[in-house]
Amino acid sequence: MGGTNTAIGIVDARGTILYQAQIPTEGDATGSEYAKRLGKAINDLIEQNNLKGKVKGIGMGAPDGNMKTGEIAHAANIPWAKTVVVPMADLLTAETGLACKLANDANAAALGEMYYGAAKGMKDFIMITLGTGLGSGIVIGGRLVVGFEEDGLAGELGHVRMVRQNGRSCGCGRTGCLEAYCSATGVARTARELLELFPERKTVLRNIVDRPIAAKDVYDAAKQGDGLANEIFDFTGKMLGDAFCDFIAFSYPEAIILFGGLAHAGEFLLKPIREEMEKQILKMYKGKTKILISQLNDSAEAAILGTSAIAWEYT
Amino acid sequence: MGGTNTAIGIVDARGTILYQAQIPTEGDATGSEYAKRLGKAINDLIEQNNLKGKVKGIGMGAPDGNMKTGEIAHAANIPWAKTVVVPMADLLTAETGLACKLANDANAAALGEMYYGAAKGMKDFIMITLGTGLGSGIVIGGRLVVGFEEDGLAGELGHVRMVRQNGRSCGCGRTGCLEAYCSATGVARTARELLELFPERKTVLRNIVDRPIAAKDVYDAAKQGDGLANEIFDFTGKMLGDAFCDFIAFSYPEAIILFGGLAHAGEFLLKPIREEMEKQILKMYKGKTKILISQLNDSAEAAILGTSAIAWEYT
Repeated sequence: MGGTNTAIGIVDARGTILYQAQIPTEGDATGSEYAKRLGKAINDLIEQNNLKGKVKGIGMGAPDGNMKTGEIAHAANIPWAKTVVVPMADLLTAETGLACKLANDANAAALGEMYYGAAKGMKDFIMITLGTGLGSGIVIGGRLVVGFEEDGLAGELGHVRMVRQNGRSCGCGRTGCLEAYCSATGVARTARELLELFPERKTVLRNIVDRPIAAKDVYDAAKQGDGLANEIFDFTGKMLGDAFCDFIAFSYPEAIILFGGLAHAGEFLLKPIREEMEKQILKMYKGKTKILISQLNDSAEAAILGTSAIAWEYT
Repeated sequence: MGGTNTAIGIVDARGTILYQAQIPTEGDATGSEYAKRLGKAINDLIEQNNLKGKVKGIGMGAPDGNMKTGEIAHAANIPWAKTVVVPMADLLTAETGLACKLANDANAAALGEMYYGAAKGMKDFIMITLGTGLGSGIVIGGRLVVGFEEDGLAGELGHVRMVRQNGRSCGCGRTGCLEAYCSATGVARTARELLELFPERKTVLRNIVDRPIAAKDVYDAAKQGDGLANEIFDFTGKMLGDAFCDFIAFSYPEAIILFGGLAHAGEFLLKPIREEMEKQILKMYKGKTKILISQLNDSAEAAILGTSAIAWEYT
């Protein structure tokens, strides 16, 4: 479930998406109304394809989804869940008769990557989702790190503090968080800050005047060889590399895998990440942990595969 | 095995230390000679107490002990292991005929705390050892986090970077590490820095002239109500609190448990830690993770219990 659309898929045990459907997330006054519509769409997809009785369960990825309670609580971008707690898993089970497990997006992506993507065969890795925010899903010993209350609230690596003095304000209400610098939003902020700070610097980014600069613009400019755009990725990658050194000192994973829109920047990010890690990492960890780009595409398919992994694992 | 002495104990399944012995760690030219002496001491302790054939295995805690290979490699404070790799677990097995598992001290302490101490019944906690350095042992889902190569090299939280600009030099060759500030050595450094920086400040710490100031001196001064000593603990606790906020964003543990000499400072450290966490922690984690002092004493007994846990778990 994204803020705009909800993608539905029926996935077999091999990770093949057999059937797909989609409904808008928006338009309902309450979570119950949305669950009714979603439940009907799921039932329809099952019945149309003669799979009644053959579906094991439902996995659902949702912003602020609580794995333990199955609730969506205080989700900033979902109007009907902004100020209330919606027992989404229970509502969906009532509509479909199927067991339903909720998880947050980054945790679902981590399991998807382990079952179907770049982390196949790995038991220890960290998934970093670089989108509007910076999310994370951590797998240790083949198991998702969910936190002591088993609600899936562990793994908020977007909110480790990278700048402890005069840091940027963050959506969480604090300052200096990794997410405030190294998300798509963070890259755009860096661009706007540098343009203002160095009015004499020439860059194609100055040609964008009719709308705010986005991370995609910085990427396009970097591809054209724009100096400032390249520096923005250097700055972003360097900070990610520093943060990864700390993450490795925690769980010493086999890989850190980048997923989401900003991960498309590929080498523009990977190069400064690797250079900084080479310089800064604790000697005992040197050259061990791989930095990879996700093998799941950032599409409805990736979301469906990731959440199906939640269903296989937990329902 | 400490740098000076090696404590030996026979522990039953309930965590009762039945018999104890001790040998000096120092004095041998090679690791093999040490292992021969240690093996003999273990055999003697077993035979003297008529326990031949009744001992399950040997757990051994050692600086830079590698869980996977059973080797002690490049241990800075052990003359016979400074520049070579000593296959200690294999050597001990050869001497005693018992399975032997090596682990580093902080990991052993974490397991000891889970079996016999403040973490009894917990499945998710972080052990922080505050001694000469700052070590850590991390337990998630009831299992020690050992890293993807299963060598126990995960959990080097003393080397997350707290000061990214102009940080103190650290024993690891980098700068700004948590350990450089928040270990016993770090506290003594803070004291010496502040005394130099503020020559006009009055403090009983100035009475120590015949030797370098130690963390214990700062503690003794703080107990007497010395203002500067209290500020040193405030500074130390504040930084620990900041670091703990980041650790919690990783694994969301039920508790962070402080162990080792500096943990004796108790409320002098706990108060600023808790105050800083209350201010800085991500809203979703507020008031959840407990900060506790270890229930194992910093004695040969704690070391024996901790390493016996390694034997129960892994041999």
